[in-house]
Amino acid sequence: MRQNPARRTALLDAAIEVLAREGSRGLTLRAVDAEAQVPVGTCSNYFSNRAQLLLQIMERTRERLTPDPAELAEALAVPPSPELVAFLLRQVHQRMDADRSSYLAMLELRLEGVRRPELGAELNRIHRAGLEENIRFHRDAGLPGDRVAVVLLYLAVHGMIVDDLTVPDVLAGSAGELIDELCRRLLPRDATGNA
Amino acid sequence: MRQNPARRTALLDAAIEVLAREGSRGLTLRAVDAEAQVPVGTCSNYFSNRAQLLLQIMERTRERLTPDPAELAEALAVPPSPELVAFLLRQVHQRMDADRSSYLAMLELRLEGVRRPELGAELNRIHRAGLEENIRFHRDAGLPGDRVAVVLLYLAVHGMIVDDLTVPDVLAGSAGELIDELCRRLLPRDATGNA
Repeated sequence: MRQNPARRTALLDAAIEVLAREGSRGLTLRAVDAEAQVPVGTCSNYFSNRAQLLLQIMERTRERLTPDPAELAEALAVPPSPELVAFLLRQVHQRMDADRSSYLAMLELRLEGVRRPELGAELNRIHRAGLEENIRFHRDAGLPGDRVAVVLLYLAVHGMIVDDLTVPDVLAGSAGELIDELCRRLLPRDATGNA
Repeated sequence: MRQNPARRTALLDAAIEVLAREGSRGLTLRAVDAEAQVPVGTCSNYFSNRAQLLLQIMERTRERLTPDPAELAEALAVPPSPELVAFLLRQVHQRMDADRSSYLAMLELRLEGVRRPELGAELNRIHRAGLEENIRFHRDAGLPGDRVAVVLLYLAVHGMIVDDLTVPDVLAGSAGELIDELCRRLLPRDATGNA
């Protein structure tokens, strides 16, 4: 069968909605067909099995959550500072808020990965590479804070996102201010050492 | 039917294993009967429905993860310092590591709470009260760091736990050292202000 890239993407976007709404057990090829409003059997023409679908959903969520390069370049046009780091991390949080389905789907995939070693191995590889990529970006952009600081920022924002997705009353809308405080307290002002 | 408290606890512990292993969709009253090796129908004598079971699982995970008061009192016998906070947070992480099923079950419940408003409301209430309780404990014990610092510590350790449960290669066993660094960098040495 000929495959259409736009349709493939539409199927993956439908799968993300199913995963976010129904959880991983609700994710079947048929449920994705229904969500995407395509004939039954379409999804199985694009993905040989559920495991394949899960791996490609993972890639698609990352694609959807990747910042626009032009926007990022614009943000980086000012001198590096803890405030700039806070601005960038606030954008990470805002991307979550604007695309909760992608993040919920990623959380579902993480839990599914605990049960499926093959998916788990891939998730480990991708998340580890993602953190290294964050550290490299931070250093290359000359942003303040060493490797450990970047890891700590990542962990705190990750914790915020999980809470704001699943128990939003805990932080009750204070994530932005908490990100500012986190950067102010954790990052050096002169970019040469620790706070 | 007469209910036996020990059997109720055994059923909840079985439910936690089912939830951790199979995910929330795998959690049925019958699956819990099977896991607990009790006659079919036992679970439905203890829990009127699945929603009731979910709420009581939540309470049981909290019970299982609560530190032993004697151990906690012993840990608090030394003068307050960032190192003492790190020691206590390392214990939180160790409790997760010793009872991964409870934490995985809690993550499953969080995602189920997004889908079930009644459960979600209860999770919001409990997690919010839990954070306030942490802040109160920190202050009453005279530990260094203000309210915002405690929230930031909580978020970072929460992020660590989610990663160590679902993608352990990311931190690759460094959580303990990261907790030390987090406390060293974020907490004041003299307990009077910010780091």
